Amino acid sequence: MKKFKTIGLITKPDDDSLADTVRILLEYLRSKKLEVITDQTAAYLLGDKALVAYKRSVLARRCDLVVVIGGDGTLLHAARSLLASGVPLLGVNRGRLGFLVDISPDEMTHRMDEILAGQYKEDLRFPLHGQVIRGDEVVSECDAFNDIVVHVRELVRMIEFDAYINGRYLNTQRADGLIVSTPTGSTAYALSGGGPILYPNLDAIGLVPICPHTLSNRPIIVESSSRIEIVICKHNNVSSMVSFDGQLNVDLANEDRILINRKAQMLKLIQPSGHDYFEILRAKLRWSEQP
Amino acid sequence: MKKFKTIGLITKPDDDSLADTVRILLEYLRSKKLEVITDQTAAYLLGDKALVAYKRSVLARRCDLVVVIGGDGTLLHAARSLLASGVPLLGVNRGRLGFLVDISPDEMTHRMDEILAGQYKEDLRFPLHGQVIRGDEVVSECDAFNDIVVHVRELVRMIEFDAYINGRYLNTQRADGLIVSTPTGSTAYALSGGGPILYPNLDAIGLVPICPHTLSNRPIIVESSSRIEIVICKHNNVSSMVSFDGQLNVDLANEDRILINRKAQMLKLIQPSGHDYFEILRAKLRWSEQP
Amino acid sequence: MKKFKTIGLITKPDDDSLADTVRILLEYLRSKKLEVITDQTAAYLLGDKALVAYKRSVLARRCDLVVVIGGDGTLLHAARSLLASGVPLLGVNRGRLGFLVDISPDEMTHRMDEILAGQYKEDLRFPLHGQVIRGDEVVSECDAFNDIVVHVRELVRMIEFDAYINGRYLNTQRADGLIVSTPTGSTAYALSGGGPILYPNLDAIGLVPICPHTLSNRPIIVESSSRIEIVICKHNNVSSMVSFDGQLNVDLANEDRILINRKAQMLKLIQPSGHDYFEILRAKLRWSEQP
Amino acid sequence: MKKFKTIGLITKPDDDSLADTVRILLEYLRSKKLEVITDQTAAYLLGDKALVAYKRSVLARRCDLVVVIGGDGTLLHAARSLLASGVPLLGVNRGRLGFLVDISPDEMTHRMDEILAGQYKEDLRFPLHGQVIRGDEVVSECDAFNDIVVHVRELVRMIEFDAYINGRYLNTQRADGLIVSTPTGSTAYALSGGGPILYPNLDAIGLVPICPHTLSNRPIIVESSSRIEIVICKHNNVSSMVSFDGQLNVDLANEDRILINRKAQMLKLIQPSGHDYFEILRAKLRWSEQP
Repeated sequence: MKKFKTIGLITKPDDDSLADTVRILLEYLRSKKLEVITDQTAAYLLGDKALVAYKRSVLARRCDLVVVIGGDGTLLHAARSLLASGVPLLGVNRGRLGFLVDISPDEMTHRMDEILAGQYKEDLRFPLHGQVIRGDEVVSECDAFNDIVVHVRELVRMIEFDAYINGRYLNTQRADGLIVSTPTGSTAYALSGGGPILYPNLDAIGLVPICPHTLSNRPIIVESSSRIEIVICKHNNVSSMVSFDGQLNVDLANEDRILINRKAQMLKLIQPSGHDYFEILRAKLRWSEQP
Repeated sequence: MKKFKTIGLITKPDDDSLADTVRILLEYLRSKKLEVITDQTAAYLLGDKALVAYKRSVLARRCDLVVVIGGDGTLLHAARSLLASGVPLLGVNRGRLGFLVDISPDEMTHRMDEILAGQYKEDLRFPLHGQVIRGDEVVSECDAFNDIVVHVRELVRMIEFDAYINGRYLNTQRADGLIVSTPTGSTAYALSGGGPILYPNLDAIGLVPICPHTLSNRPIIVESSSRIEIVICKHNNVSSMVSFDGQLNVDLANEDRILINRKAQMLKLIQPSGHDYFEILRAKLRWSEQP
Repeated sequence: MKKFKTIGLITKPDDDSLADTVRILLEYLRSKKLEVITDQTAAYLLGDKALVAYKRSVLARRCDLVVVIGGDGTLLHAARSLLASGVPLLGVNRGRLGFLVDISPDEMTHRMDEILAGQYKEDLRFPLHGQVIRGDEVVSECDAFNDIVVHVRELVRMIEFDAYINGRYLNTQRADGLIVSTPTGSTAYALSGGGPILYPNLDAIGLVPICPHTLSNRPIIVESSSRIEIVICKHNNVSSMVSFDGQLNVDLANEDRILINRKAQMLKLIQPSGHDYFEILRAKLRWSEQP
Repeated sequence: MKKFKTIGLITKPDDDSLADTVRILLEYLRSKKLEVITDQTAAYLLGDKALVAYKRSVLARRCDLVVVIGGDGTLLHAARSLLASGVPLLGVNRGRLGFLVDISPDEMTHRMDEILAGQYKEDLRFPLHGQVIRGDEVVSECDAFNDIVVHVRELVRMIEFDAYINGRYLNTQRADGLIVSTPTGSTAYALSGGGPILYPNLDAIGLVPICPHTLSNRPIIVESSSRIEIVICKHNNVSSMVSFDGQLNVDLANEDRILINRKAQMLKLIQPSGHDYFEILRAKLRWSEQP
């Protein structure tokens, strides 16, 4: 296992309730003689001028490990911006278990002891890459670790779109939208849409319709190498959007094509040795609890 | 059965493709020596200056029967505006079967023969009445024959709300929204949300969550006399709306209460004697078709 | 409110773990100078020879109230056998909350104080009556408070059947079976089949398919006055059954017709004044709990 | 592409309606100077004594290609018995499209022309292997191409079982059963249970509960390399079974462990060059058809 010497800190922006957790972690890391840097979020939170702040691209290059303190959303944001660097990420939650940030503040220093001693797993997660194509031009593109969601701008209206897999026509749907989800995203919005749980390391992408106006729709799971294409039908008279991890939104026009592929580069998620995905499923979803 | 002498015509606005159907119907009705009036939509469509046009409130008072030509949406709109008058409605579709407009242009005059001869059923449908209450004030209110839907303004975000039935706490939900539906609306948006089909005359209201972010939600069906209250939680940081039949929208603020009751006054929907609800279900939903 | 003077005791047969609860209740009732009789189940459990035992039909006639100690199944069994007498039932559970037996042994005597003082509600539940018709003959018939379920004898095979409502053809289904459920039964097997929750006093019957082999099936809810008919198709080559409350089973032959109507006579379920159905839903189903 | 010289014929047993199709195919193959042999099913059907019949194990060894005429069930049966030999299979249906037998009698000779000319795809499908372990002993074992289903013997009762993935505890379920399905089986019984569609070449296994008595269950999809273990809880008082492709059944006892792994050896399914899985999905499931 690699030794971690320079640690980056990224926190949920503007969440004062995290300051204590960040301070404890910072002191802990300094006590271990590790160099600690931030992307400004942690420095801002602590008002600690000794904490060196870099742009994320520089931070990513300089660190051996980035600790993200916040919720799943904060980690997704960091993951997209740090992906290219290959730096591994470790998530610490705010006292409320997340699927990606599953170390609690209470056990944080204890878990860090283990991780610094090399007792950890590297869990690889692939991102999707989505492009919005208008005519012949790519007008927008973005990565997503959870999902790329094509949807109406306002609910209670439907859009019509065609779906293709590897260039083959799949179907035409009238629905509130469609969730294209990684296994990581299967416990996020795809779960709300009625999709199955996909084991995190599954080599698969889920297509989960949102409120389809038909009885005969069903989620379909395809290989992660599939090229997925969604084409907004030209006669829609409602406006639609595409959302990346629910964080970045791009307006769509009729006849836009949304092209989705998995990326080769994967996110390295650091997990303490005792990490148990099923335990998180049961704890967060009260999965299969008995009446 | 009542004899129909004065017939009102209401059509989908600005849909030129309806002109022929409306013209045929108008000539047919005149050939039967019936008085025909409109709310302007039919006069506008035909450019027929001899066709007398009234405001809807006057039209409703003067007619014994109103024929609505268009889709289910056109009929819902007419139903809300004509409800108070008690005038019965008959729906003619545009060549595509609707749940409420189930007479096709082809069979229109034949069906009218039967209906004018008293061979018809009056199918009663109850509307919901929804009030948006801010503090102590009713800031908005409206009827709905399909559904009253509380929902996020933009998808891929969730709102949190509490639901109460007859003053008793039901549950707290985090979801894209909640559909409160009449039996009439159970084949509309509530169907997309995964709700059951409610037989049209059922004395019941359905509460169907939209993309709940939990495994353990399920539609619940309550008596139509139930007082339903939805309270938007105060810590939401996404904006939400309420939609009446998907046609009227009202912005909501946190802590707004949406109070929903059925109305006593019911819509009279005229149905030809051979009308078969299950046949419409099978035709429109391909219900229970075999693989 | 009626005064209860003679109390019947019925317990789950052969469940020794109930003896203490039954003994405490018996002593409590005797201390109130009430006459207590049993159908033998309680006498057998206690070995108490002073406790007079009658056949259920006699018991029902002699009592003002019957207390049933056990699970929902024990109460369903008692309800079917005592229905004709009109005697009200009160359910005490074995330490594990049921939908019908919702008084716990701990609070039992306290709740009885209230009930004997007239502080209770009478909650009316209607039974279904099912008849199996072969040719022109009724070969079997039975009541059910939860559900009447037509199903294959052995799983992983399908039967085909036609469903009719009030003599009108509904659809043809290929499935493991069909659950015809009262509102009371909507939280039992119909819930497992994916059906909605029906508020207990709803005037409705649910038809919930079991594992339909099609994408386009959906539960349908009809008026409780509906006449429901299931006809086993003649070309089935698997054997099928009908189950009443999951407790009585009757073998079916191809072309058998199962005719289901609600009964006019209703069960009187006694509920303590603080009874809250939604609280039971939340407690037993962890309904709408958040991830 | 390999040249096919010796062709095996296997037909649905005892289905006289297939005789014409088999005769036409036989004449076609002989006209091409190909050697044709059977496992007796085709010889029996045709009463053709010149058609040489072998045991399946011998047939498999001698053939370059086996044509299976019947339904998906006939092909599944042949697939299990011929797997070890590695001989490829081609399915011809009885006039009703199957997921595995998708060549119709009408196009049969035309498709054979193409296939004999080398215009075909080899579609690989993996089988599951299931073992029933009682104490330390394997009491039964079998392959399955669709699914291995653990279930109650008679419906309307539930069993309780624990599930483990790769030795890790997943959950405890009370349900009618559990479907462990290959992608091939995802359109069979797993579909009825509410599972997602898995693209045929997906490297995954689905676990789909049958009528779970809880709100909070959901299908989960795991890697095909996963070791799945189902343990029947010891306090069940209903009898249970395990079914392999719905064709072979083994009785289970409490505390039995069902161990399921994918097999390395895969079935070679021959598909004509124009084969389109999504077209079959749409045709058989009327997938995403609009209301």
